[in-house]
Amino acid sequence: MDPYNRLAELKLELPPPPQPLPTFVMAAQTGNLVFVSGHIARKDGKPWVGQLGVNMSTQEGQLAARAIGMDLLATLHGSLGDLRRVERILKALCLINSAPAFTEPHLVANGCSELLISVLGDAGRHARSAFGVAQLPLGACVEIELVVQVRNG
Amino acid sequence: MDPYNRLAELKLELPPPPQPLPTFVMAAQTGNLVFVSGHIARKDGKPWVGQLGVNMSTQEGQLAARAIGMDLLATLHGSLGDLRRVERILKALCLINSAPAFTEPHLVANGCSELLISVLGDAGRHARSAFGVAQLPLGACVEIELVVQVRNG
Amino acid sequence: MDPYNRLAELKLELPPPPQPLPTFVMAAQTGNLVFVSGHIARKDGKPWVGQLGVNMSTQEGQLAARAIGMDLLATLHGSLGDLRRVERILKALCLINSAPAFTEPHLVANGCSELLISVLGDAGRHARSAFGVAQLPLGACVEIELVVQVRNG
Repeated sequence: MDPYNRLAELKLELPPPPQPLPTFVMAAQTGNLVFVSGHIARKDGKPWVGQLGVNMSTQEGQLAARAIGMDLLATLHGSLGDLRRVERILKALCLINSAPAFTEPHLVANGCSELLISVLGDAGRHARSAFGVAQLPLGACVEIELVVQVRNG
Repeated sequence: MDPYNRLAELKLELPPPPQPLPTFVMAAQTGNLVFVSGHIARKDGKPWVGQLGVNMSTQEGQLAARAIGMDLLATLHGSLGDLRRVERILKALCLINSAPAFTEPHLVANGCSELLISVLGDAGRHARSAFGVAQLPLGACVEIELVVQVRNG
Repeated sequence: MDPYNRLAELKLELPPPPQPLPTFVMAAQTGNLVFVSGHIARKDGKPWVGQLGVNMSTQEGQLAARAIGMDLLATLHGSLGDLRRVERILKALCLINSAPAFTEPHLVANGCSELLISVLGDAGRHARSAFGVAQLPLGACVEIELVVQVRNG
């Protein structure tokens, strides 16, 4: 399965990769492992602000997590030069900005997991943790980081 | 130290490994590293619901963390085919469902860490982070993920 | 860039490495990867207690994160025997003890990231996630863990 063909079939377009920042990088590689920074959800280029269980539904949270999935793919595309170098998404850490009573962080995280599987196929099937956090940078509703296994370029 | 002998000595029985799920896997391996998904605490096969500092004591939390330790071993047994392939538990991430005033997440996490050491010996000694989170999937009281070094099968 | 010369130039002195604990280790290595345990902020040898957005400013949080950066370097110095064996800080996970309304965990985390870059140069540039948590061990204000790539000794 070619991820670029698959993106086209799904009528999805990779966004530009997130900008580098002065204090950290979006992805750091050692050998065949890439550690990808936590990406916060963005909508129209700005932080997607919200808190699950306060002013955002599980379904909206899934859309935000799906948008992060696209940004993570954009970062991998930019960082590796070719998404086909992704051998496997190994691990996702999914942080959901939550009221103390919101017990569906795993359903929100599915928005990202399903996107990765639908674009990358079995290479997108990963181990995962999902949980509710007290708050996220800039008030974003969801933040997701990855560990990825890559092929040599 | 053979982990199966040690489990028998401790009169502990491995539970059946957690079921695979449509959106993620319980463990993903690359080379000699295995990333194990966050496992939520279960009691009698159902999520072990509770929040530390609200309706659960540190001691109860430790029992829940210990139960997760058994589930993590069950996942490794199922995924590797043989627990003796565990060379070392490298890292645990311990998420404790907490009221904002509960400051003993590390003591709760000890329930899992001590179980891993008592079954695996020095191979169970790991680096660790433990912290209080706003909420967990299905209201579970504790969730723990691992990074594990394994021998070739 | 020699990290010891750089520490001297910055007039910084490595603290003694944190004590080992009965239930976990401060760092666990496999191949060229070192997983470093979450280090809580300390001031005068005691936990640096506080909660961002409650009784602590972003600027104070940055000082606490910077102090953790020094403790992390002390752990690496103690564990590796020589800080020059650090090839790259790959990943930081930055946990900020936060009120639900505090949206600057990333700015707090910069205190550690900037310290690592100023001591290690490009080897200190890492991928990162930062987020607000409900609570931390002993009421500490910040906790940070690392994944580090090292050279053979």
